[in-house]
Amino acid sequence: MKDTIPTITTGPLPASTKVYLPGEIHDIRVPMRQIAVSNEDPLSVYDSSGPYSDPQAAIDIAKGLGDLRGNWLAERGDVEAYDGRAVTPADNGFAEGARLTPEFPVRRQPLRAVGDRAVTQLAYARAGIITPEMEFVAIRENEGRMAAHARDGEAFGAELPDLVTPEFVRREIAEGRAIIPANINHRELEPMIIGRNFLVKINANIGNSAVTSSMEEEVEKMVWAIRWGADTVMDLSTGRNIHNIRDWIIRNAPVPIGTVPLYQALEKVNGIAEDLTWEIYRDTLIEQAEQGVDYFTIHAGVRLHMIPMTAKRVTGIVSRGGSIMAKWCLHHHRESFLYEHFDEICDICRRYDVSFSLGDGLRPGSIADANDEAQFAELRTLGELTKIAWAKECQVMIEGPGHVPMHKIKANMDEQLKHCHEAPFYTLGPLTTDIAPGYDHITSAIGAAMIGWFGTAMLCYVTPKEHLGLPDRDDVKTGVITYKLAAHAADLAKGHPGAQRRDDALSRARFEFRWEDQFNLGLDPDTARAMHDETMPKEAHKVAHFCSMCGPKFCSMRISHDIRAEAEKREGMAKMAEKFREGGALYIPAEKAEPAE
Amino acid sequence: MKDTIPTITTGPLPASTKVYLPGEIHDIRVPMRQIAVSNEDPLSVYDSSGPYSDPQAAIDIAKGLGDLRGNWLAERGDVEAYDGRAVTPADNGFAEGARLTPEFPVRRQPLRAVGDRAVTQLAYARAGIITPEMEFVAIRENEGRMAAHARDGEAFGAELPDLVTPEFVRREIAEGRAIIPANINHRELEPMIIGRNFLVKINANIGNSAVTSSMEEEVEKMVWAIRWGADTVMDLSTGRNIHNIRDWIIRNAPVPIGTVPLYQALEKVNGIAEDLTWEIYRDTLIEQAEQGVDYFTIHAGVRLHMIPMTAKRVTGIVSRGGSIMAKWCLHHHRESFLYEHFDEICDICRRYDVSFSLGDGLRPGSIADANDEAQFAELRTLGELTKIAWAKECQVMIEGPGHVPMHKIKANMDEQLKHCHEAPFYTLGPLTTDIAPGYDHITSAIGAAMIGWFGTAMLCYVTPKEHLGLPDRDDVKTGVITYKLAAHAADLAKGHPGAQRRDDALSRARFEFRWEDQFNLGLDPDTARAMHDETMPKEAHKVAHFCSMCGPKFCSMRISHDIRAEAEKREGMAKMAEKFREGGALYIPAEKAEPAE
Repeated sequence: MKDTIPTITTGPLPASTKVYLPGEIHDIRVPMRQIAVSNEDPLSVYDSSGPYSDPQAAIDIAKGLGDLRGNWLAERGDVEAYDGRAVTPADNGFAEGARLTPEFPVRRQPLRAVGDRAVTQLAYARAGIITPEMEFVAIRENEGRMAAHARDGEAFGAELPDLVTPEFVRREIAEGRAIIPANINHRELEPMIIGRNFLVKINANIGNSAVTSSMEEEVEKMVWAIRWGADTVMDLSTGRNIHNIRDWIIRNAPVPIGTVPLYQALEKVNGIAEDLTWEIYRDTLIEQAEQGVDYFTIHAGVRLHMIPMTAKRVTGIVSRGGSIMAKWCLHHHRESFLYEHFDEICDICRRYDVSFSLGDGLRPGSIADANDEAQFAELRTLGELTKIAWAKECQVMIEGPGHVPMHKIKANMDEQLKHCHEAPFYTLGPLTTDIAPGYDHITSAIGAAMIGWFGTAMLCYVTPKEHLGLPDRDDVKTGVITYKLAAHAADLAKGHPGAQRRDDALSRARFEFRWEDQFNLGLDPDTARAMHDETMPKEAHKVAHFCSMCGPKFCSMRISHDIRAEAEKREGMAKMAEKFREGGALYIPAEKAEPAE
Repeated sequence: MKDTIPTITTGPLPASTKVYLPGEIHDIRVPMRQIAVSNEDPLSVYDSSGPYSDPQAAIDIAKGLGDLRGNWLAERGDVEAYDGRAVTPADNGFAEGARLTPEFPVRRQPLRAVGDRAVTQLAYARAGIITPEMEFVAIRENEGRMAAHARDGEAFGAELPDLVTPEFVRREIAEGRAIIPANINHRELEPMIIGRNFLVKINANIGNSAVTSSMEEEVEKMVWAIRWGADTVMDLSTGRNIHNIRDWIIRNAPVPIGTVPLYQALEKVNGIAEDLTWEIYRDTLIEQAEQGVDYFTIHAGVRLHMIPMTAKRVTGIVSRGGSIMAKWCLHHHRESFLYEHFDEICDICRRYDVSFSLGDGLRPGSIADANDEAQFAELRTLGELTKIAWAKECQVMIEGPGHVPMHKIKANMDEQLKHCHEAPFYTLGPLTTDIAPGYDHITSAIGAAMIGWFGTAMLCYVTPKEHLGLPDRDDVKTGVITYKLAAHAADLAKGHPGAQRRDDALSRARFEFRWEDQFNLGLDPDTARAMHDETMPKEAHKVAHFCSMCGPKFCSMRISHDIRAEAEKREGMAKMAEKFREGGALYIPAEKAEPAE
């Protein structure tokens, strides 16, 4: 261990307290974050940050998080512990000696389904069983609300109940409209749900750097991303030590971890795509399933006849997985082993409850290539594969683009709903223009907010470094916050029954010049406070009834208060409005002043 | 002058050359920026940066920019020079001695219309006259294109011709659908057009700081904003020296300058809204019109009977101008002097061709208040005022919100088109959520891109400091770039015939690993380059056929090239596709693989 490694970030966010809500059906504790607000009740919000933000929790990454799900799994009585696959030097890219990341210190036998049982949340849901995972996410989705908040919105067919019940969760999962990515070997997981009838979620990608990576560094990347709101984390590491680092990450992860197993398989054949085989790939799936990976990106939709469809594209194939498989298919001139062995992949996934994230290997990499023949041909194949996976009782979500101009975004959602039978959609952005390298978190947040509104269940973040380089800590935070605000904008527009609570609380704080509350209720209190202090650093200014933008004389909010006070003083606002409606010659009749909505 | 004052930023952007295109009707030189691209023709793009980016131009802010429009005005023969209003100490907030910003050194008599002539672009357009201003913007809008680029898009009723002609410009202005803000006293102006059948424009706000402001500092703020793409600049200064500083800005501004005259009028009555009078306001309008302000924000739509409609709002009245007028109206219990004297305001504007930007004094300041009774009541009044201004041959645009969740954005555009008779819409954002202070450039870019797509002609930028503090130089740049990308995303989605050229050029560069071209074709070459160099600083990497994100082994773009090369080598891509379509048992028939579009 080096001296320069980061420590793990712990402790609550400003003005925040971790609370746990109990289940009614199961013995569960569902984490929630309460933000203290002066003059108001605290605001409960969704909390993806795990035990790291709980001052009561003892954090030791060499021990990992607590075994939250062990009893739940044991009570179901359909899993067995077994020795598991032996870790091979190839799993860590033949790293040796000082270059080998140490194994995670605590060894636990992996679990698998007994016999050919399906131990997936989908199987339980279809059987009418409400699992602890289902009740957990039901409570979590309500964010401590007891009732719906005032809402409007256009949900495009999504059904957003006033309160999410465990039975609603069960039904959504049974019908394939939602998934709870929850590998039975990820017992540290705080379950979350992905589906268009729930809060829009976001994913953050992390990955080791080619130069140097300690396990602390990799765990901290995950902790940092979930602290700011990442609901799931994909570990896209390549190169050496990926097996051991993945263990460290999963053992310390309260959120679902996704991977692209193809990346590791390719490492095992020294990066030569043509040398990939089903056997190596299959072995990698089992390796990762035993570790507890919650969802696999699998590019089984890239079929041989689609590859020529990409020849005239401006940017060809931009998905790494897609291009690897395309190269393999062309070289061997046959369908990919992912497609041919899809049945067997399902058999592995149902045994551990690894969810499918069916990869869009032919997604467009530029505005020019959006919504083209190749993209939609693959999407229809993903729909066919969804049915096969569902027949095997596996959970499925579908990955989507990419680069799409605004007017073509809705078609992506519509086609996905139609051809993929309402399986949850999980999109990267999409970026709405190609001309702003360095700002692609923003070009893509525009597309992400829109497609989230239209029905996408999870948004994969994009950082400012997209297309340019590896994101650092600040980039990851910027990406996560940007996607949290996009997801929230989508929730608002869909008419989510609880979404506007936070906007309203912050706006009330704004109107009443409660600066501390404004900072604390925002997605990034530290940045908001720092920006405020740049202009008005004095503590006294935090209670000032004006801000730096207008100064005391011109402050419109202050004038609004004066207006309200004056009106109330004089005769009460209601009477005053009445009087104005009766009006003199100067006033237009009230009928003409009706709102247009 | 202090040693710490910034110098004026001059010189071209990376790989860029300033070119000037001649007119066919008039003797004009229309500036354009050509970006050199390796292996391709240079890309011509719209250039708002003025002479500052032209290495041939001699810049001396004490002399101001050249008298571009002097001859045009003289040739029309309908204006006269006169002595103009005497500057009073109140105009500069009674600043004296060392605290008084020096007068702009070059004094020129102001111009005004002869008699009661209207010297507005609208008046000329209606009379069938194509002015130099009109031909200038027609050439400018085409960005050096000779033909339409491949396009699709959903324009929501906007009409986007393959090439903009001077006659098309004239017609759009005559019908009130577009304006060229061009005060006859702003002779340094490079004309630009605002209308939904043209490229979407952006505005940046600047303003003096309360503490200290030199004229160089204020001029540099404007130069910096237009360098990155601001199409107009609003000077929202308050306090001391605003008259003199405004002179310095306008004399050095190649873009239209907008103001809110009410702010200065309020200064003249020591910030006591109740003490405002029509006479003081009227005098301020003339003062600013003589200086050359191109458009005035005028909150004449705030009517007395609407004020109680804001009483139950979460955030009351958030427009400074709106709250000042509301306070005045309540205090005097009468309609505002802006509303009552609107006819006379029109008479001033037509005399100098100051365009109206009818202010939305009751715009919502929170998600909760979006699209409410007060907002839409005012909008309808703005529509009535538009007709009055048009009858006086004045140019008009309409300001819009504010804070609006995504599902309520379209209604804003639809109502505006309907009630304001297709006068151009000019919106602030809108912000699509209230929960991200510190990131409101992004919450608002989402709304701005969408409303720009729906038909808004100009987007007023929001910086990261919105709601928190005064934007610094970096914030201004971030705000401008963010809004440029939002405006461009809107142009793409509308199906603008030239918009996709730049995306495609950048995407080709990306696919061919031409790193320098990628940086140069982007909106912010410096930031893109710096981000790339953080991970891969070596010069050799700028020609590397991979990037830091995947590294050489996994690079999907490189694999795409391999695929393409391999396919071409074997038998030609076309034949290969043919063969695949004929297919064996593994292949699905081509009919089933048609794109869904």
